[in-house]
Amino acid sequence: MSYVDEARWGEIEAQYPTGDQFLSGPAALSQDELRRVQEARFLKVIARAWHVPFYARRWRAHGLEPGDILGMDDLEKIPIFSKSDLMASVEEFPPFGDYHGINFEDQRARASAVFHTTSGTTGMPQPLFFGARDREIQNCLLARAYRLQGLRDADVVHSVYGFGMVNGGHYIREAILHFTKALLMPAGTGLETPSETQVELMRHFGATVLVGFADYLKRLAEVAVQKGIEPGKDITLRMISGHLGQENRAELSQMWGGAAVYDWYGVGDTGTIAAEGPDQDGLYIFEDAHLVELIDPETGAVREPGESGAICDTVLFKDTVYPVVRFNTNDVTTILPPKSESRINFRRMDGFQGRADSMVKLRGINVYPTSVGAYLAEIEGLSSEFVCRVSREGTRDEMLVMVELMSGAESSAAFGEEVRAHLRARVGVEVRVALVGPGETAAFTEIERRQKPIRLVDERT
Amino acid sequence: MSYVDEARWGEIEAQYPTGDQFLSGPAALSQDELRRVQEARFLKVIARAWHVPFYARRWRAHGLEPGDILGMDDLEKIPIFSKSDLMASVEEFPPFGDYHGINFEDQRARASAVFHTTSGTTGMPQPLFFGARDREIQNCLLARAYRLQGLRDADVVHSVYGFGMVNGGHYIREAILHFTKALLMPAGTGLETPSETQVELMRHFGATVLVGFADYLKRLAEVAVQKGIEPGKDITLRMISGHLGQENRAELSQMWGGAAVYDWYGVGDTGTIAAEGPDQDGLYIFEDAHLVELIDPETGAVREPGESGAICDTVLFKDTVYPVVRFNTNDVTTILPPKSESRINFRRMDGFQGRADSMVKLRGINVYPTSVGAYLAEIEGLSSEFVCRVSREGTRDEMLVMVELMSGAESSAAFGEEVRAHLRARVGVEVRVALVGPGETAAFTEIERRQKPIRLVDERT
Repeated sequence: MSYVDEARWGEIEAQYPTGDQFLSGPAALSQDELRRVQEARFLKVIARAWHVPFYARRWRAHGLEPGDILGMDDLEKIPIFSKSDLMASVEEFPPFGDYHGINFEDQRARASAVFHTTSGTTGMPQPLFFGARDREIQNCLLARAYRLQGLRDADVVHSVYGFGMVNGGHYIREAILHFTKALLMPAGTGLETPSETQVELMRHFGATVLVGFADYLKRLAEVAVQKGIEPGKDITLRMISGHLGQENRAELSQMWGGAAVYDWYGVGDTGTIAAEGPDQDGLYIFEDAHLVELIDPETGAVREPGESGAICDTVLFKDTVYPVVRFNTNDVTTILPPKSESRINFRRMDGFQGRADSMVKLRGINVYPTSVGAYLAEIEGLSSEFVCRVSREGTRDEMLVMVELMSGAESSAAFGEEVRAHLRARVGVEVRVALVGPGETAAFTEIERRQKPIRLVDERT
Repeated sequence: MSYVDEARWGEIEAQYPTGDQFLSGPAALSQDELRRVQEARFLKVIARAWHVPFYARRWRAHGLEPGDILGMDDLEKIPIFSKSDLMASVEEFPPFGDYHGINFEDQRARASAVFHTTSGTTGMPQPLFFGARDREIQNCLLARAYRLQGLRDADVVHSVYGFGMVNGGHYIREAILHFTKALLMPAGTGLETPSETQVELMRHFGATVLVGFADYLKRLAEVAVQKGIEPGKDITLRMISGHLGQENRAELSQMWGGAAVYDWYGVGDTGTIAAEGPDQDGLYIFEDAHLVELIDPETGAVREPGESGAICDTVLFKDTVYPVVRFNTNDVTTILPPKSESRINFRRMDGFQGRADSMVKLRGINVYPTSVGAYLAEIEGLSSEFVCRVSREGTRDEMLVMVELMSGAESSAAFGEEVRAHLRARVGVEVRVALVGPGETAAFTEIERRQKPIRLVDERT
């Protein structure tokens, strides 16, 4: 059995359709029909998970036996896990952990495994494993997201997702290559292809779609302008798809000459969970492929409808190598009900509202750096580059928000005071503000080197 | 038709087998049987090429009509092309050239296309196109090379081929992922994963195989030692596969604790053409997949058996998107006859002897920088880092060879004189020598940033 045989590739698009087949298929299912699809997929995942040491030992320690999980109604009986449990698994069973069920002593019998790591951690990164089949399904689901957002066969897609050990760039490349006919330019990060070269490639090869993390996509627009390349004229993007957080979507669109901007959400362990559609009104959860719950990040209790909470995901197609059952991503959102006038009967996410584990408590108020970014975007004259530095003064925590002025904008005490007052009103607590020149937060955010810039620097220890 | 359908993946391993099926299949064919396989594949390639504007216009301009090429006996009638013809095609038909036969105006009808660029050029890089099917065959052929050299399912392969727009890293990743079960660590270049992190990953995840360009593989061994990681003990490689040029194979093996070192050859436009087998006695040309001729790089005349010349390749499986018919790679080698005691009945290449286009003429003698590297490796006390700088003094061209001392080795006028005398004897002409400290050629070779370090700096203009 090779990767190709294991992937059973021919079946994938029938089971997880994209494009019109998605709209007339999974998206159009009634709640009962959807539930039946989910139940069948859920039971396969649970059956696989019992064969994976990580789950078997955790679930048994929690008092569960295989007969105790008979369907989705039993979901809440299952203990939640998060990144820290995976890292503990790696610590106990080095170097690969025991959450993938691969027996490295018995190579002949084992399935193909795609091996990557997550980004952005310090020290040794977390290993990520994919089986041939779940990898290709996840590729297909990202293609579904892009096609829903308007990707066409004739597009030239410029991707700034990074490669190397990290999963991101490889995932995007496989999705576009295997499940669309668009032409992909896999440029990667600014380290892999310098930003100046990237904008030249986009102009030269006629990029029509740009994908990546919003911060770097904005940076590229600035670099284009610096090089005398006019976004919207010399580079005519029709569509941008990325991860918007709470940044100003309008700003990104305007910087790229009015391109339509779309959000999607997923993490390395889960693949694409949800994506905005053409209505740009919430991210449709791909509920034929994912069971999404919102939980209290501290107690694990499931939130009531309408409450915000951390995304806890069960992946319905990972029944080969590494199953994902009740994974707390620590990303905070709110779930919206299905939209009656939409062709897609799925529940929606309200976008990324912050990291549960990067929340800072200032005088009793929860502050998310990503929210600070959204509030800064409301003020004219500021660029979208900022960093929040938290320090302790005596027994009191203080936050200093360093934010870059738009190039050409003037710094003044009055403007600083205006920004401070705005943040105080919006955040609900006093923070300090330092207006700095273009590029001056880069040493903190590491924006040139990282896919996701650092927005919170904790200087309290 | 999607990528998967177009690839007809299920057929590939039967047509281009790897492992034991390679040895009992194509490798065991008689000359007549091989010729029959080649003829059938050749005619499909020619039929495709007539539909590609680049070939149709060049061949017609050369006086050829479709009926004129009826088999391999007509090969020498066909005009040779090289990189400069492709770049001229791009110039004339921007931005993608006309050598791939893709009609970008008619997206619906067109085949899937993998788009990359070649590395190492200045200005806009050369676009490389692959169809789904030829891409996957080429992946399979690289897996054949690795398996022939001893790659096993149980191996953990550390790859330092770079990603981004450049083809290399993606090619290696697909080959290992789709056609072997070894676990791949796609680390990429030192920019994608810093060298210090790379050696830590190799130790941590237990790398057993290392693949990449020889220069950087040596550099990694030095970095390991600097970090107190002992190659051969803390990292126990069994196999290294890369591109050796004329570097000292023994040195690379010794730096990595005695790992077996294998060479293979191919370029972006052709994929893997030839690879050493376990006998390490020449690179077996995969003659079921490639027709290799050696030519005079200036006149295009085919060399007599035993003479060295530039490799001119016709790829027998590229009959979908971009066909490659008589491509002059400008890489110089000699062809050896099949080896009677080998299980592989294919002709062999004698390894990479230099670039026809980086040859320097000094007082009538042809000097290849790669050969200079090989001669330097014969002297104790020198590292393998060097650069040749050519300048004009009056009407005379002079070459200064800067070479780094092994760390700890002493520089002296006598040692410099010894190196100079040795090079004079081996190269056949006087060159100047400068002994420099470790790392001092890096500004010229750009070894930290480039897959293939610069060994020739031409300062004559």
